[in-house]
This record gives sequence, C-alpha cells and structure tokens, in this order.
Amino acid sequence: MPRVCNHGPVPIVVQKFGGSSVADAEKIRRCAQRAFDARQAGQDVVVVVSAMGKTTDGLIDLAHEISASPPRREMDQLLAAGEQVSIALAAMALQELGHEAVSLTGAQCGLRTDASFTSARIKSIDRRQIERHLEAGKIVVVAGFQGVDEDGSTTTLGRGGSDTTAVALAAALEADVCEICTDVRGVLTADPRIVPDARLLPEISYEEMFELAALGAQIVAPRAVFLGMKFAVPIHVRHAMLPDTGTMIVQETSTMEQNEVTGVALKNGVGRVTMQDLPLGNGIQATIFDALADAHLFVDDIIQNRVDDARMSITFTADAADLKDARAALQPLVDRIGGRLRVDEDLCRVSAVGVGMRTHSGVAARMFRALEEAPDGPITIENITTSEIKIACILSEADGPRAVRAVHDAFGLGQTAS
Amino acid sequence: MPRVCNHGPVPIVVQKFGGSSVADAEKIRRCAQRAFDARQAGQDVVVVVSAMGKTTDGLIDLAHEISASPPRREMDQLLAAGEQVSIALAAMALQELGHEAVSLTGAQCGLRTDASFTSARIKSIDRRQIERHLEAGKIVVVAGFQGVDEDGSTTTLGRGGSDTTAVALAAALEADVCEICTDVRGVLTADPRIVPDARLLPEISYEEMFELAALGAQIVAPRAVFLGMKFAVPIHVRHAMLPDTGTMIVQETSTMEQNEVTGVALKNGVGRVTMQDLPLGNGIQATIFDALADAHLFVDDIIQNRVDDARMSITFTADAADLKDARAALQPLVDRIGGRLRVDEDLCRVSAVGVGMRTHSGVAARMFRALEEAPDGPITIENITTSEIKIACILSEADGPRAVRAVHDAFGLGQTAS
Repeated sequence: MPRVCNHGPVPIVVQKFGGSSVADAEKIRRCAQRAFDARQAGQDVVVVVSAMGKTTDGLIDLAHEISASPPRREMDQLLAAGEQVSIALAAMALQELGHEAVSLTGAQCGLRTDASFTSARIKSIDRRQIERHLEAGKIVVVAGFQGVDEDGSTTTLGRGGSDTTAVALAAALEADVCEICTDVRGVLTADPRIVPDARLLPEISYEEMFELAALGAQIVAPRAVFLGMKFAVPIHVRHAMLPDTGTMIVQETSTMEQNEVTGVALKNGVGRVTMQDLPLGNGIQATIFDALADAHLFVDDIIQNRVDDARMSITFTADAADLKDARAALQPLVDRIGGRLRVDEDLCRVSAVGVGMRTHSGVAARMFRALEEAPDGPITIENITTSEIKIACILSEADGPRAVRAVHDAFGLGQTAS
Repeated sequence: MPRVCNHGPVPIVVQKFGGSSVADAEKIRRCAQRAFDARQAGQDVVVVVSAMGKTTDGLIDLAHEISASPPRREMDQLLAAGEQVSIALAAMALQELGHEAVSLTGAQCGLRTDASFTSARIKSIDRRQIERHLEAGKIVVVAGFQGVDEDGSTTTLGRGGSDTTAVALAAALEADVCEICTDVRGVLTADPRIVPDARLLPEISYEEMFELAALGAQIVAPRAVFLGMKFAVPIHVRHAMLPDTGTMIVQETSTMEQNEVTGVALKNGVGRVTMQDLPLGNGIQATIFDALADAHLFVDDIIQNRVDDARMSITFTADAADLKDARAALQPLVDRIGGRLRVDEDLCRVSAVGVGMRTHSGVAARMFRALEEAPDGPITIENITTSEIKIACILSEADGPRAVRAVHDAFGLGQTAS
C-alpha cells in the first residue's frame, strides 16, 4: 500500500542515474542535490545508481587478467562491487546535504532474481525493505543492475540492468514516476548531430520507445521500457543536471496516432550476410541459426526469399564486428548444403517509428519516396524490414545521415515544420 | 561437526592473505596456487582475503571528497566493496587452476556482527553456509574484514579485521589451523633490519604474540591473536609466497618457559605527555582521560607517581602524531586545576617479551644493565612499564636500534648464540 499522509498518499519517485552521471565525487553530489530537491518537494524518493564511470570496464579487465572466461557467478560477485561503491557515496552525499539516507545493495533491498548469472531475470522485489526506510523519512539509494538468487548468491541483470532495476522498483512500489536521469535532454525525433532541427518529444509511447531503444537510441534500455509497459510505469527521461522537462514514456494515446511517424533512428555498423541459392528444404533455417547460436552471435533482422521452385535466399543482419565469426560458422555449412555466401559490411539501418502507422496508410511509400528523392541524389535501399509500428531500410553507411534527414523532413518532424 | 572421510575427519585449514599479497592479478594467482596446493594435500580449504593493495585507501579518499565525516554505515557499505572484488578474483583464479571455488561476502558466509559500524564485533558465524560448500568439494573464498548486522546492513570489523575474520572462521569451523599468509617469513626474535642475526621463532605463545603484536610487530592483529587464544586456534604465520615453515602461535608450553625472553620489539613515533605538580585529589585522573577520550585520542602506557603529600605527576604515552591534539585537550584543564604540562616527542619503546619472565627472576635487571652497558655508550631510560610477560622502556628514538641490539644480545636470542 502506498503511504498516506494527511493530504492523501505520498507520491513516490524513483530516480535513476547512470554511470556517466556518477563518474566522480562532484557529479555524485549533483545527483544527490537532484534527489534532495525532489524530497523537499514532498515526494518519497528512491535513487537507483549505476557503477561510477568506467568502473565496470576496469573490473572486467581485471577478471580477464585472471581468466579468459571467468566463471559467471564470480563475475557477478565482482561487478556488483561497482554499484556498492556508488550507493555508499551517494548516500553520504545526501547526508552531507542534511537529509537522512540509506544505501541498499540488490540483496539488501530484496531484489530476488533467478540464478542466470550475468543476465539474471527479476523474480520478485520485497517492497517492505524499502518502505520501512521511506516510512522513517529516509531517501533510499539502491544499487542498480544487481540482485540476489535463492541461494544468496549475488547476480547481475546484464546490459541495461540499472534501468531495469529502476523501473522494476517503481512498479513494485507503485511509484508515480520512474525518472531516468541521463546525459541527454530527452527523446528527440532524431539524433540532433545529424538533424539539427530535431525536436524534443514531450511524450512517446512505450511501443515507440521500445523500437527506438532497440534500434540504437541509447537512452533507456529496451528491457526497462518493456517492463514499464507491462506494469504501466510512467518513465520520465530527463537530463541529470539540467531542469528540462524531458520526455514522458507513457501508454499510447489517441493524439499520438495523429502523427504517422514519431521519430527516425539510425544504427551504424550493420553487417549483412546473404546466403543465396540455398536448396528449399526443411530444417535448413534451423541448422543455420543453430550454428550462429553455437558461435554466440546475435542476429538482428532475418529476411527469407524464395527464388524459384528449388532455391531460396536467406539474409540476416548483425553487428559488423561479428561478420568474421559469422562467416567462419556458416561457410562449412553452405559448402555442404549448396549455395553461395556473401558478406557485406559498411551498412546502416534507418528506421521510422510511430504508432500512427497502424492507422495511416501510405507511410512506407512516403518513406521510400523520400529516400528516392533525397537532396544530393537518390539513396539505394538494400533491404526492407517492417514491424507494426516501424519501417526500417538497410542502406550504405555513407548514406545514413542523408537518409535520416530526408525521412525526418518528409514526415514534418522538425522544429521548423508546421 | 567436522567432516569425516574414510580415514577420519577431513582436516580444515583457513588461509588468510592480506592486501599486499593480493595487490594484483599475478599475486592473486599465486595465493590461489597456495590454496590449491593445500587442497591437493587433502585438506578442506577456506581462504580469507583482504581488499587489493591500496583499494581501501582509495575508497576512503573518495568518501572524504564527498564528506568530511562520512556516515559510518555508508563507510562500511563502501569499504566492503573492496574485499568483494578480491574474493571474486581469487575464486576465478582457483577455478582457472581447475578447482571448484565459491566466493562469499561477510553476509553470505553468515558472519553476524553488532551494529558498531567501522569497528563491529563478531556475534556469531553460521558455519553451515561454509560447510555446505566444503561438503560439495569446493574451496571457499571469504571476504575478510566484513560482516552483516541484524538489520542486514553491511558492517566492517575495523583495523586488523581480516585476521580477525580468519581466526573467527577457524574457531567456528573447528579448523586444524589458521594460516596468516603475509610478506614476512614468520615471527622473529627482533626486526632483522635492526638485528641482522635475529632468529625465526618456530613457535610462540598467544600471550607473547599479543604483547609483540600490540607493540608494533605488524604481523598478526592483536584482536585476532586474542581470539585465537580464547578459542585455542593454532595460528600459523607464514610467508604468502615462500615455502618456509614460519611460526606457530600456540598455547604456552613448558619448554617456552625455559627462555626468559622470546623477542624484542621496537615501536617508533612514541610521544609522551607529562603533567607535573598536579594536586592530589579524587577524580582528576578521570577528568584527564575523559578529555582525551572526547578528543578521540588513544593512549598507550599510563604512569602515575606521587611527588609528595599534596602533589602527583601523571605521564602517558601516545602516538607522536596525536601530541598536538593532546596538548589542546589538556592545557585548559591543567590551567584550571593547577600543574605543569610537558610534551615530548621523538621517543621510542623497546620491549622484551617472554612467558619465561614469570618464573625467572632478574630479567628486568638484566635488561636495564644491557642498556647501561650498551656498546657505544649507556642508553638513558626515560620511563619503564611492565606487564606479567613484558618489560618496556621508553627511550630517545635515536637510541632505539642500539637498544634493541643490546637487549637481544643480552638474552642470547641471536642465531649465533649458543
């Protein structure tokens, strides 16, 4: 149950600060000030912090000095020390500002996970551990990224873990909002380094943010967005140091559907593997992707085309850095079953995202025409993939920025647009 | 209950490695090898490690960048991260050697303390947490220096905490021996830098070690020695990297009493405060030492002399670094009650320690004569204090090394002695 004061329930805010926001003592002090201000404004405040700056990288390097493949349980025990340092320092900074504060590790705040070390999934959160400190009037500082399994072993949540912790705590505490305090002003219609008149979005739907996050807009971890959607936690993306209004990630609203496209994302470093003239036949797809999984390679889009009655082609995209390993895994296979293997790098993916696509027709055509009629000459579309609220084109990496600007303009997303 | 194999109970060894022994990946690897060898020799092995090298100092500096007097609970949360890093790395190194290993923080190994943050006292150890891993055939790596209070908060044990953890675990597990692996070969009759022919002591009693440890032989923390004595844990002081036999700290034996003096210790940086011509009267001593306690100053020896029917003098020794604070605390007091305050620095303490003193008479006289007849001229004794198994003289710091050599020779402690 939420706490109740004389005037009704006390609002709860969860504020998450990432590694770059707590990189040194001075920055930690500024994050503490932000939390302190929220508390002064009458909210119960739970702060979630990541490890300081490059701490995690330093610990990973140490582990690799000892072992080429460090055991995962010990890796988690090791990495969790990073956030333990930041929570203690953040709690000190809050007390220095004159407010009672208490730091809690993942285990201490009752964040239970499964035992999948290095990529654990949250099973439950014992909200009483945090609530008793809030009830005592304290600001609670929780270590992001980490939890504890049934056996009492320390676990970590993997990539984007601190965002996930913050949103999960907000859900468990029925918080009014989960603030992701970061080093950007909020979510923009495009990367402002590419599109100078990109506009700050005051709000965006979980679905759109999920697509944009997964597509390389490094603002909120996709897992956290998904969790926010599942438990209807409003996520507020704000700059950690500036008083900007930022972007609210919320349930889809009818106004949102008025815009066909909400934002345009660019992902560079996309590699592509094409297997042509494969024989049609059962199990070939499974054999291919088993081989990739065995080599621990991640695959993004998968496209399959039938060429004629006997042959098909399969294309997938992956990080360009993984192409060499992908070739090594697939060449023997293609040699055995027949076909040709082709690998391309220097590609990028330009995606237009918007819940309005569901109701507006012709969005795809408009995007393709924008690329065809781009200033400085037509842009060749290499591949196309779509989801319900996304259209993505694979292009030459050199054309990426030009393509983003063309699509951004075509859908009237800029500040100067009507 | 100790584990039992076909040939009887499996011996348990607790091995403790200090910060300098785990200062980098290579050193951690060598400590792991030592533990691995003990396991291969058929023992159950529990490893206790400190934080790497100067980690703790670095964390303390960080805290002081944030707060001049960091809250103690958060200080403990912060510092405990240091050992968490070393245990994970040590467990990785053991697994790299091919042996199953598991790291446990203070909380995970069930080491319960009171809530005196930064100097907590051990209340209990839940030995089952470690035993279940030993029974599974694993080497257990435990974080020294840290525990958990009833509330689930992280605590630290203060100075010498890792030694204390090791001995306490050895007691709880009924281990056969607690090895303190350090950067010296064992306990010598004197500092070999001062006395070149100082001899390694194959064994020493707890009482003697306690006096020597407290007197500045920085080998085993006095608290740990006391705990070892209380629970009759044999403590084996060994070099972390060399295969030397080291020194066993054990219950006093009758052979030990044959030697009047076991070792000679030197402590430099001794300061002395003398309050002369104080009026005789009740409560003055309490007033003085209350004032020192309020100023958080530690006092070593206290000597009181009566001058005549109305006046007395009180002298105490303290770290020379604390003299300025001591003067500030005491001057107003002496001004008020009458008397004169005198502060001396540049002193040292030379102590002869041995359980044999109890049964041999004339030890004191022999020591004083050795100082009087020292080569290169007589040494002035400024103060004398004694305990049952110790005679200590306060001298000018410049005379310290000469005094140690003279006393060491006088009691025939050298390798070349008969």
